[in-house]
Amino acid sequence: MVGATGMVGRELLRLLENRRFPVAQLLPFSSGRAGAAARFRGRSLPAPAVDFLALSSCDIAFLVSSDEVARTLAPRLAAAGVWTIDDSAAFRQDPRVPLVIPEVNAAALRRDARLIAGPNCTMTGLAVAAGRLHREFGVREARVASYQAVSGAGKAALGELFTQARALARTKLLSDGRAPSLGPGRASALPRAIAFNVVPQVGRLGADGYSGEENKVRDELRKIWSAPRLRASVTAVRVPTIRGHALAAWLTLARPVSVARARAILAKTPGLVLSEAGDYPTPRAAGGTDPVYAGRVRQGTGPREIALWIVSDNLLKGAALNSVQVAEELLRRRWLVPR
Amino acid sequence: MVGATGMVGRELLRLLENRRFPVAQLLPFSSGRAGAAARFRGRSLPAPAVDFLALSSCDIAFLVSSDEVARTLAPRLAAAGVWTIDDSAAFRQDPRVPLVIPEVNAAALRRDARLIAGPNCTMTGLAVAAGRLHREFGVREARVASYQAVSGAGKAALGELFTQARALARTKLLSDGRAPSLGPGRASALPRAIAFNVVPQVGRLGADGYSGEENKVRDELRKIWSAPRLRASVTAVRVPTIRGHALAAWLTLARPVSVARARAILAKTPGLVLSEAGDYPTPRAAGGTDPVYAGRVRQGTGPREIALWIVSDNLLKGAALNSVQVAEELLRRRWLVPR
Repeated sequence: MVGATGMVGRELLRLLENRRFPVAQLLPFSSGRAGAAARFRGRSLPAPAVDFLALSSCDIAFLVSSDEVARTLAPRLAAAGVWTIDDSAAFRQDPRVPLVIPEVNAAALRRDARLIAGPNCTMTGLAVAAGRLHREFGVREARVASYQAVSGAGKAALGELFTQARALARTKLLSDGRAPSLGPGRASALPRAIAFNVVPQVGRLGADGYSGEENKVRDELRKIWSAPRLRASVTAVRVPTIRGHALAAWLTLARPVSVARARAILAKTPGLVLSEAGDYPTPRAAGGTDPVYAGRVRQGTGPREIALWIVSDNLLKGAALNSVQVAEELLRRRWLVPR
Repeated sequence: MVGATGMVGRELLRLLENRRFPVAQLLPFSSGRAGAAARFRGRSLPAPAVDFLALSSCDIAFLVSSDEVARTLAPRLAAAGVWTIDDSAAFRQDPRVPLVIPEVNAAALRRDARLIAGPNCTMTGLAVAAGRLHREFGVREARVASYQAVSGAGKAALGELFTQARALARTKLLSDGRAPSLGPGRASALPRAIAFNVVPQVGRLGADGYSGEENKVRDELRKIWSAPRLRASVTAVRVPTIRGHALAAWLTLARPVSVARARAILAKTPGLVLSEAGDYPTPRAAGGTDPVYAGRVRQGTGPREIALWIVSDNLLKGAALNSVQVAEELLRRRWLVPR
């Protein structure tokens, strides 16, 4: 595992242990600065800098690190015959690389494609929640506004949220009965101060005005749903939550669908927990749990349109859990055999 | 003024003072529980329970209170010849009552319509920001996801946010390098715990799945834009910000528009501050200020669609400021004359 001491790495180690994934030997590596230790099965393991030779002797490599690290390691590992599950964005759009969410498109896995990409954490909830609806009714257009947790930006960003929230919580808010104006505040790990704020920028903004994150959601939906002509527009927004990305989505289908029919399809969608009408998931309730959740299913602006609310844990189904599920699928097919 | 000690009331008093609104005598009333005092021009004034006789001797009455209080007072005040500016939702859809945002539809004011309604705080940003775009290109469909500040739910909700945030900020977060899962938490003033959470419910959820707030945005947009056939679908979400409602909006127009043309129209829209391309407003930066702000203007899913991001202070332009601007418009027309 490369990136074993990062936030996704820690979740991945916990999942491998709790799901009794057959690990004969674990080699945890830091993805750059070594030093921190990894915990697995009650033991603390050193996580040194990457040793390619050691890594290439493994049956499977989990990369939960940066695009740069993946670009250096992933093709060489796959060429050496190692099943390589990469959670970065580096190879997601490579036509030779399957981009896989097992509940949605396990069929994209190929025995000769040893490098497998995991999806962006923001699009995962939508791809799972509306995967079956897309198959039965054909999603033609998608508009999506995100409410993305700070853990998606890494440990430094999360530390910044806590520091800012603590500082503000110490001040005497509401002293004169007026709601205080906080001013813009300062930020370094994120583009703007995030405590008591929402920031409509995730990734760099491009010439067309869209951010890197927004384009990833569109491009990865197209690939995972095999819907190259899907018209999607996303507004990706960071909000001061800790874990669990939420999405408000409007989906235009190829033909009319009632809310009752849409709910019936959602209720039998693999990996999805559908709230009762009148109830809904939130990041606090969904954070730290495995499923994708949906609720607030409504007719949108017309009979072909469904509006819904989706929440999924960005570190789990959006990252670590999906990687483990891909590996479990390889075991199931016996393409990967425990030693 | 009825509701003078509430959150909007305090802003309204400050605005009347700072904008040198010609007040010969101010009668502040609490809207129910008396006791708290109002501050105006450096003096503390008692705010007793409403005295209708005293109130009906005024030239103008600002109601910044509940629908119930407005239903009791507003028609009688207007019948007594008092210009009555009501910030509640009670009369917004009454066809005899002008619903007015001065920058957008001052023309709806009538000399014989003494009861005037102010708009919902969530739709105000969109009505102002896209008002001119609608006039020039005709908005046919709107999809809107909101990021609504807790002050919009009142003092008790804001107190709950601070209490929850303080309690969490005291705990040792991130101790093991894993992002903590907070669990659902407890709430009383809002439907769910709001600190480090986002809650997709503002108002009661109806049989069609939409909340009261979501339907208000649609219905009030139709009335203020004189667009009865506008197809709008809104997802209203409470987020842990203090003041400043944000909106991610997709607007489908009657004919194609380029981003450059849309930006040119937005740049000359009254009451709107347009961010440079690559920049954008946030609630922290916009909170406590008067204008509506917009940014992140992009082409949506097709050539007739514009996506944009809007922020405006829910207590100011969304409530108190709009009421004062309506009153200033009455002065300008000399329908209201200072004593």
